Amino acid sequence: MSVTAPQGFRAAGVVAGLKNSGARDVALVVNDGPSRAAAAVFTRNRVKAAPVIWSEQVIKGGSVRAVVLNSGGANACTGPDGFQDTHATAEKTAELLEESAGEIIVCSTGLIGERLPMDKLLPGVAAAAAELSRTGGGLAAADAIRTTDTVAKIAFRQGTGGYMIGAMAKGAGMLAPSLATMLSVVTTDADLPAGTLDRALRSATAVTLDRLDSDGAMSTNDTVLLMASGASGVTPDEAEFTALLTEVCNDLTRQLLVDAEGASKAIAIEVVGAANDFDAVTVGRAVARNNLLKCAIHGEDPNWGRVLAAVGTTEAVFDPDQLNVAINGVWVCRDGSFGDDRDKVDLRPRDVTITVDLSAGPNSATVWTTDLTADYVHENSAYST
Amino acid sequence: MSVTAPQGFRAAGVVAGLKNSGARDVALVVNDGPSRAAAAVFTRNRVKAAPVIWSEQVIKGGSVRAVVLNSGGANACTGPDGFQDTHATAEKTAELLEESAGEIIVCSTGLIGERLPMDKLLPGVAAAAAELSRTGGGLAAADAIRTTDTVAKIAFRQGTGGYMIGAMAKGAGMLAPSLATMLSVVTTDADLPAGTLDRALRSATAVTLDRLDSDGAMSTNDTVLLMASGASGVTPDEAEFTALLTEVCNDLTRQLLVDAEGASKAIAIEVVGAANDFDAVTVGRAVARNNLLKCAIHGEDPNWGRVLAAVGTTEAVFDPDQLNVAINGVWVCRDGSFGDDRDKVDLRPRDVTITVDLSAGPNSATVWTTDLTADYVHENSAYST
Repeated sequence: MSVTAPQGFRAAGVVAGLKNSGARDVALVVNDGPSRAAAAVFTRNRVKAAPVIWSEQVIKGGSVRAVVLNSGGANACTGPDGFQDTHATAEKTAELLEESAGEIIVCSTGLIGERLPMDKLLPGVAAAAAELSRTGGGLAAADAIRTTDTVAKIAFRQGTGGYMIGAMAKGAGMLAPSLATMLSVVTTDADLPAGTLDRALRSATAVTLDRLDSDGAMSTNDTVLLMASGASGVTPDEAEFTALLTEVCNDLTRQLLVDAEGASKAIAIEVVGAANDFDAVTVGRAVARNNLLKCAIHGEDPNWGRVLAAVGTTEAVFDPDQLNVAINGVWVCRDGSFGDDRDKVDLRPRDVTITVDLSAGPNSATVWTTDLTADYVHENSAYST
Repeated sequence: MSVTAPQGFRAAGVVAGLKNSGARDVALVVNDGPSRAAAAVFTRNRVKAAPVIWSEQVIKGGSVRAVVLNSGGANACTGPDGFQDTHATAEKTAELLEESAGEIIVCSTGLIGERLPMDKLLPGVAAAAAELSRTGGGLAAADAIRTTDTVAKIAFRQGTGGYMIGAMAKGAGMLAPSLATMLSVVTTDADLPAGTLDRALRSATAVTLDRLDSDGAMSTNDTVLLMASGASGVTPDEAEFTALLTEVCNDLTRQLLVDAEGASKAIAIEVVGAANDFDAVTVGRAVARNNLLKCAIHGEDPNWGRVLAAVGTTEAVFDPDQLNVAINGVWVCRDGSFGDDRDKVDLRPRDVTITVDLSAGPNSATVWTTDLTADYVHENSAYST
């Protein structure tokens, strides 16, 4: 189902030849309306890929007819020529749909620093336009945006009154705040204006996709796009829509986490007792990025000292003598010192929960990360060769 | 020669039984004067080990008679009882030297979150005091502070007029800003007051030990101590002394870099063209901490896109379209896009230099790091078991 679960959308995924593997590498998702309201969030990296620079302008209009996506090349750090390639891709898509290029979002993913083979990409876009469908197209599109993802990621939910939200995402390494190396397209047939979609998307991604930090690296290409066709005729309550969208984004986040490059553990870092939300997220990220801790979890070693060492690098409000840490429910650190017997911690399951209690207030946040493994090193030391 | 290269110092390193391996694990370095002027810098981690909390108070007096160091346990996150253990260690050392505990610095390194076996440590301190010597003691002390270090690290230099600076250090993983998992004792027989030593030490470590970032993790125990005996009778010019001290610290930094856990590459990140020093160091650290880049260098892949992606996460002054990057002298990125042929980059040597030109000003800084390897993962996933 994916992005074509809601009414009013068609999609396609085709082989254009950008990937040496011969796998699908160009996807197209078209909104047939009646509404074209849309919102998007992008990477916060200051080094932005050409498609991000383009799409940031497009989304300002609040109206999107289609998104064209390619894997097999990020089109980042490619200079003015690379930007022209993005422009040409949007123009080609617009021409095929008999639209203005100003309503075409472009997304790219793959290696940074190389031009896209336009002689393959543009025919691929035409092929995708010819194959647009509601049945099958959604899954093919989700497949076409994969890079090192081992599986396609899709999600959908139905809301009150029968409107739908559908989604696809890709992302395996370089998952970090600001949605790194992540492309995601979310569709809905709810009838909502762009301003509401923007608020809902920012709210939903802030507590889901933006809290996934697999390796602390931030990508140049991240884009999460939300398009609404209005085809269901339902205008849901904003709070209800936001909650359902958050569920969909949470589902995608979980899939990205489990499929992160080389990971053998899915780690939730729950920070509680924080003085404010910012502190909770900051501490969560600091723990999530600690390579030594990530190695320890890989070795199934409940090395809570590394958690405290990570917490101590932040400016969050806490007293070192009042920090508590639980690993998979066992409070191995109490009041900044050793607590319950660390031998009671069972780290064999894939899911690991590290709870950090700052004892400084009522706020909390969860950040997700993975363990650091030899497989991660292998996969990322041979990526571009 | 190590810390006993300068006149006025004796040292020892003994087996107290803290390490299961049976290797040396307690070291003592004593300043026999006539001066006892001293200065120190410590970790900036807010979760500080008991010996750091103790020693921060001692150094305020500007006078240090001796430093007692142990490997085999960090005495961090051990609560009030752990602090009493540090206090007892200082008292025992003071008693053996017939001194005040208020002039005894204590350093510990090893696993966080476990009490030290005081029934072994205190007899070890007594054994070390009985073995203090100028010949042999310096090397034994350098050996005794090793944890996962494969070799003992020592350095010494002679200054104008014949005064000496000697040093020992340990540190293998968790090397990060704020001197992580690093213990270093530097001695000199120059005759300088504590205030001068403090300025010189801060200046020297800021551009050497503090710019080594092997894995972004910050330790709870880092201490760099400088003790001056005045025994040479020479009072060097402050600038000259600072320069010589910087040389010694640079020598130690290089040794720590080459011996970092699991590393196969020693990477210098030279940031040039920065608007100010802060920007230069910030960008250097961001690049040094990028796991994806560290994996690429391990794979001998000149993946400059990952350099730009790391630079783009900072708030430094730069225009993405004016960034230049050289890897081992080949300018693979010019004006934010691809430059010279990346196939010209030879990444086979152990030493790798990544030059980032921000094109934003006249300032520069160098930060050192290592590659990310499967060996690093293996070593750190089994450390505490």
